[in-house]
Amino acid sequence: MTGPRFTDLVNALPATVPFVGPETAERARGAPFTARLGANENGFGPSPKAIAAMNAANAEQWKYGDAQSHDLRAAIAERLGITPAHLVVGEGIDGLLGYLVRLLVAPGDAVVTSEGAYPTFNYHVAGFGGTLHKVPYKDDHEDPAALIAKARESGAKLIYLANPDNPMGTWHEAAVIERMVNEVPEGTLLILDEAYIEFAPDGTAPQIAADDPRVIRMRTFSKGYALAGARVGYAIGAPTLITAFDKVRNHFGMNRAAQIGALAAFNDRAHLARIRAACTTARARITQIARDNGLNAMPSATNFVAVDCGGDGDFARSVLAEIIAQGVFIRMPFCAPQDRCIRVSLGPEAELDAFAAALPRALKAASAKI
Amino acid sequence: MTGPRFTDLVNALPATVPFVGPETAERARGAPFTARLGANENGFGPSPKAIAAMNAANAEQWKYGDAQSHDLRAAIAERLGITPAHLVVGEGIDGLLGYLVRLLVAPGDAVVTSEGAYPTFNYHVAGFGGTLHKVPYKDDHEDPAALIAKARESGAKLIYLANPDNPMGTWHEAAVIERMVNEVPEGTLLILDEAYIEFAPDGTAPQIAADDPRVIRMRTFSKGYALAGARVGYAIGAPTLITAFDKVRNHFGMNRAAQIGALAAFNDRAHLARIRAACTTARARITQIARDNGLNAMPSATNFVAVDCGGDGDFARSVLAEIIAQGVFIRMPFCAPQDRCIRVSLGPEAELDAFAAALPRALKAASAKI
Repeated sequence: MTGPRFTDLVNALPATVPFVGPETAERARGAPFTARLGANENGFGPSPKAIAAMNAANAEQWKYGDAQSHDLRAAIAERLGITPAHLVVGEGIDGLLGYLVRLLVAPGDAVVTSEGAYPTFNYHVAGFGGTLHKVPYKDDHEDPAALIAKARESGAKLIYLANPDNPMGTWHEAAVIERMVNEVPEGTLLILDEAYIEFAPDGTAPQIAADDPRVIRMRTFSKGYALAGARVGYAIGAPTLITAFDKVRNHFGMNRAAQIGALAAFNDRAHLARIRAACTTARARITQIARDNGLNAMPSATNFVAVDCGGDGDFARSVLAEIIAQGVFIRMPFCAPQDRCIRVSLGPEAELDAFAAALPRALKAASAKI
Repeated sequence: MTGPRFTDLVNALPATVPFVGPETAERARGAPFTARLGANENGFGPSPKAIAAMNAANAEQWKYGDAQSHDLRAAIAERLGITPAHLVVGEGIDGLLGYLVRLLVAPGDAVVTSEGAYPTFNYHVAGFGGTLHKVPYKDDHEDPAALIAKARESGAKLIYLANPDNPMGTWHEAAVIERMVNEVPEGTLLILDEAYIEFAPDGTAPQIAADDPRVIRMRTFSKGYALAGARVGYAIGAPTLITAFDKVRNHFGMNRAAQIGALAAFNDRAHLARIRAACTTARARITQIARDNGLNAMPSATNFVAVDCGGDGDFARSVLAEIIAQGVFIRMPFCAPQDRCIRVSLGPEAELDAFAAALPRALKAASAKI
């Protein structure tokens, strides 16, 4: 018995995973983390109204969710001044990126992203046989001009850009993105990943016509709305593109309580304002912790801060390992020269206290190894 | 601006959806249903312990779910006498079927199923370019011998069989499935969809060695555990097959509260026993309602009953439309001769009362149209 016959594409795929989750790391180390600051989760927590709505929904979890996410799409459309036909709701941005890549990328098709940008996007591209073309960051920012040039050169079907960026936390102003959209080559689609847009300064989100066929924007309830566990994201695009998701998506894939919770979170604008204020405080605190240790923190328009450890990638990896060994879960960029940094998610004071305590010991230990 | 370039496969796909959801139907008719008996949801509701566990988890929904669903897999593995390496947890059986088809089916690959069996499986096969080969039901049962013969003839990579069956509710005893497994051709994988197994008579589930490379079994928390809205299913198979899911699945795709709720539901065996008892009562009630109207109800090992309307497909479709017009949501088989039936999910007494009231009026109205 030889077992099932996988496709050639699947046989060629590595058995890697985009990220190791914190629970997996906890099991490997045999102890829980005392601070969870590695996955850009929002430890300030979801809206109490969202929690109440999900609690009320749980007794009704015997029902499938609404296959059209009608109420949530209606609310988002109204606030954004678009129509529900411009919106698809999916299982987080990760799920939507998977569907989008599947819609566009056949084996050998070119896709452009930045070296060191979101690995889960690369995972989906590889998973459908696409060929990734990468450009470097420029001064710790994703580089719109280089992305466009590479797309033109490679004939790419897709360009991926996160604004604000992950893992560096840097951002471009709206006008830069608007100019970039106007340079998107014919037949190329720009994915504008706005997972962190709720943390960015007002005016960071570009003005893009809802029917513009050159861009699809992705947003999530995982970050600003603190509902990463709920798995709710949405994409904004021209209706012809949005409709195509119906050809491939898991129509009954949305968790029902999550749909209801996301809607309640979306409508609780006061809570989002509280989150933003708490993040401003936490961002300043991490910046100060870095400074207290003689390090430089990157400016950030997200719910995390990249802290330059002042050495090379090996030094930062050593610092990271020492911090994690003290029970503080953080992550770091994968690629040089961004991998001179560690990445610390914003979180409540007690978690940042744990980071503040761990950092000097980690720096000392890492320095002793040089 | 021409917009994005879809793959040839996507361009060839129809914009159909496997099912119209009840909320979609309610919006179309402009009024809510008074009884929800169409999607084989379990209106007896989830375990109170599962509800409590999900409520407690909601405040922690700012955390991503565990990418490995470790605790849930450990509990299932222990009860089944297998290891976690034999288990993958996914976003319902629908999500797992999508991943499995993606792993195995390239354009043109042959896949075998029954005419009128689960449309969402067919949706996934079409979505990856597979070629469906269908065999008819035999006496309202899926036909293992015909499925095997068709797989042999077509060189199929996959065979789909649901036991118990949907939409007819019929089933084969364990020994029949065990014999079928032994006939699976070299290089073919049998998908044994056991979504309804918790409702079946004891002994219906076949004995299959956990390492057997010829079979993958799929189970769900949507039906017996009444958590359709949570989107939690699992597949049982040989570790080499299970590991392959890690190449394509959405690693952080599981809702965190759903993972926790499913585990609590799995551990509440007393609630499952109550559900089974309630289903026995409801099944007898629907059978009696059918009889009171001069109709025959099919025997069922599921949480629904197929009721033979005594005419052809057009007559049953007319009865269905009349029942729905009275606010009772039910569905019916798609293909002849099974489409002589309507399909009614088991549910609480008040919902069955609504069906009991609607059926004679619907039969009268449908008969008047002949």
